[in-house]
Amino acid sequence: MVAPSLVAFLPPFLLILVAAISPEPTVAADSKPKPFPPPTPLRMRALLRHERGSSSRGGNLVVTAAADGASNGTAANPFTAHHFPQELDHFTFWRRPSGGKGATAAAGPMFVYTGNVGDIELDGHIRVAINDNWHRFYGNDSEYSTKTLGYLTSTKALADYVILITSLKRNLSAEDTPVVVFGGSYGGMLASWFRLKYLHIAIGALASSAPILQFDYITPWSSFYDAVSQDYKSESLNCFAVIKATWDVLDERGSSDKGLLELSKLFRACKTVKYADSIGGWLETAFTYTAMVDYPAPANFTENLPAYPVKEACTEMIMPMSTSNESMFPPSTFSYDDMSDACFQLNGVRPRPHWITTEYGGYRIDKVLKRFGSNIVFSNGMRDPWSRGGVLKNISSSIVALVTEKGAHHLDLRSATKNDPDWLVEQRRQEVEIIQGWIDQYHQDMA
Amino acid sequence: MVAPSLVAFLPPFLLILVAAISPEPTVAADSKPKPFPPPTPLRMRALLRHERGSSSRGGNLVVTAAADGASNGTAANPFTAHHFPQELDHFTFWRRPSGGKGATAAAGPMFVYTGNVGDIELDGHIRVAINDNWHRFYGNDSEYSTKTLGYLTSTKALADYVILITSLKRNLSAEDTPVVVFGGSYGGMLASWFRLKYLHIAIGALASSAPILQFDYITPWSSFYDAVSQDYKSESLNCFAVIKATWDVLDERGSSDKGLLELSKLFRACKTVKYADSIGGWLETAFTYTAMVDYPAPANFTENLPAYPVKEACTEMIMPMSTSNESMFPPSTFSYDDMSDACFQLNGVRPRPHWITTEYGGYRIDKVLKRFGSNIVFSNGMRDPWSRGGVLKNISSSIVALVTEKGAHHLDLRSATKNDPDWLVEQRRQEVEIIQGWIDQYHQDMA
Repeated sequence: MVAPSLVAFLPPFLLILVAAISPEPTVAADSKPKPFPPPTPLRMRALLRHERGSSSRGGNLVVTAAADGASNGTAANPFTAHHFPQELDHFTFWRRPSGGKGATAAAGPMFVYTGNVGDIELDGHIRVAINDNWHRFYGNDSEYSTKTLGYLTSTKALADYVILITSLKRNLSAEDTPVVVFGGSYGGMLASWFRLKYLHIAIGALASSAPILQFDYITPWSSFYDAVSQDYKSESLNCFAVIKATWDVLDERGSSDKGLLELSKLFRACKTVKYADSIGGWLETAFTYTAMVDYPAPANFTENLPAYPVKEACTEMIMPMSTSNESMFPPSTFSYDDMSDACFQLNGVRPRPHWITTEYGGYRIDKVLKRFGSNIVFSNGMRDPWSRGGVLKNISSSIVALVTEKGAHHLDLRSATKNDPDWLVEQRRQEVEIIQGWIDQYHQDMA
Repeated sequence: MVAPSLVAFLPPFLLILVAAISPEPTVAADSKPKPFPPPTPLRMRALLRHERGSSSRGGNLVVTAAADGASNGTAANPFTAHHFPQELDHFTFWRRPSGGKGATAAAGPMFVYTGNVGDIELDGHIRVAINDNWHRFYGNDSEYSTKTLGYLTSTKALADYVILITSLKRNLSAEDTPVVVFGGSYGGMLASWFRLKYLHIAIGALASSAPILQFDYITPWSSFYDAVSQDYKSESLNCFAVIKATWDVLDERGSSDKGLLELSKLFRACKTVKYADSIGGWLETAFTYTAMVDYPAPANFTENLPAYPVKEACTEMIMPMSTSNESMFPPSTFSYDDMSDACFQLNGVRPRPHWITTEYGGYRIDKVLKRFGSNIVFSNGMRDPWSRGGVLKNISSSIVALVTEKGAHHLDLRSATKNDPDWLVEQRRQEVEIIQGWIDQYHQDMA
């Protein structure tokens, strides 16, 4: 079985409807926050029973520290938190390379991290950045309520970034500075959409592990769990078979009170579980995250984990997922109608499941972007199941896909270590080279 | 002086803050609705006195007829009104050229008119269109209030179109049909922004007389009234001089009650005017519209005029305008602060004067769009003062400017007549050729 420490990474990637449903009992035996659950089949089953999960927000979280005031950078944490209430008065972390106001010398570039739902200080992978607690409500659930759901949209998050960036540039007298946006996972989706929607603000985007095609009917619904299964299968056929057989055992044990008690003890649940699915869901999540964070170097951020960002669903980020017979997961189907009904029962609102593709596209992205758009890098690691919903082929000479066979979830955005394998070093070199090209081209065009 | 019939065209172009200020007395002697006033210098002066205009909506308007129910096309009015409350059930005005649901034959194309604030039935310049009463609140002020101001934005209007188009395509089983958007004036701005923001929905846009650069500091603030003045000057230096001398006379007469009474009688005002500016503003509007609608063929839509669309301002469409010494208009300056204060006094809200350039860009549009975007035609007639805020030079091989020296306000979108001059015929031919090229390219790409 997978040890709890392996699943302690809280991947901040997606605000999925069912993500709200935490396992009924608190399974984790240690004091670490629980992971952000993906829409695993058994969790989906729980959702369709209209179970409302209890808040999974713990008390020992570092994520909100920076939200209350500016924290100053240290050697271990080189970031300084700045906040943007209404107007931007002073920033110390960025300097024009030469000249002052009105100087003709080229300024910048400015790199803007389109935040994820996690905390930027935890993985330390950027140099000039905006604390990602910043963006609209994500990472700060104090203001969260059904009433504010309407404000919690990617469209408005993008507009927030736009206003911040333009204010920042004005405040720094750096209107001509080229801006490059980048982000991973959900933040990677934001980065690519940002470039498409605000071409006049950002000259390019690096979108790492951004599953922008995981919506509607673009990507087969079973692809995610097929990919997880493939990761396990490629490591050990026996392991794959054991896991695949687990679900029937769980179901059998879950059919009696005695079995449920046994399961609860085995998994050190705080109280006796009502459904075996609660244990199963936790296992599914463990298997899935282990595949996602299959990093070559030990992750150094398992101690401080970002909090679960929102208590309920986000109404627009509906990624349909199911399992196929080929996967090691229990059978699971997806239905937009069931999802909508469940969401309505839980939150009193119905999701807009097709809005993302309506707003940002996705269908036939290769054809659509062939003659429109430029300067986007989509990077994906094939060990990461989210890669299946990503852009894996070049679309044009300047909308390119960088794919690594052994890469995991936005691995390229993590800090470089001396143990990084050559293919990772090379991937990062390519990214830097491409971005440098955009910046050079921008300065040439403006000259 | 300009006869009232010359100014009876209600140019629906721009929702300017000061447009709300109607002349204090009702000057027009006939029963025709009053024209939609541009932000002329004297009207601006009235605004800064915080005068709230009385409603200028008349009772004899045809514009709302179609809003109450579907009107069927006739020979004189070939359009049929369709409405889109929630779901689209049936449409009869569009047919797939071949095959039914699932047929592989190419369908369409579909032309979508991004509506102006006027009524599409009045100028009859489109073939397959959506009644422009449709779009968000414009043209239907029954739901208009300060409370709904937040919904009256171009961004949301675009989203409305997107939802309509995607529903329409689904309903017609025509998902693969290429969509071309087009519009004039404010509708032209919407069309070009639509293509930039929803590249996956529209394959191209024809933006006629779209002053997308008339915001912020992109275009000199005096350019509009300089252009109007130039139109008059080129016709008659004497006329130019007479008009230029008018304002002092008006001021002088307006300084006494006797003078105001004289002016009121001369201009057949319903009651004695309080300020000479009220007469002056009307004159300014008359001069301006006459320049804008300087069409080669007589306009046939002076009888039925669309109503004044909104009673108050729109908070985002702030186009700074002033007059220079070279113009024939009275001196006028513009100040964002004054505008904001006036708007707050009148409506209780402050405008977001820089939002349009933040959301859609505009600065250095040639550089920004050089390597991004495609398939937009910007057409402008240099007789139209709005052309000064338009895109007048090619940006790339597929973002092109068609400029006619003698063209007026979105003349190319009007119905062809046998009296059309050659240059107009040629302009329309070029537009059709370019659009046909987009459609051909789309089908090639998709094949």
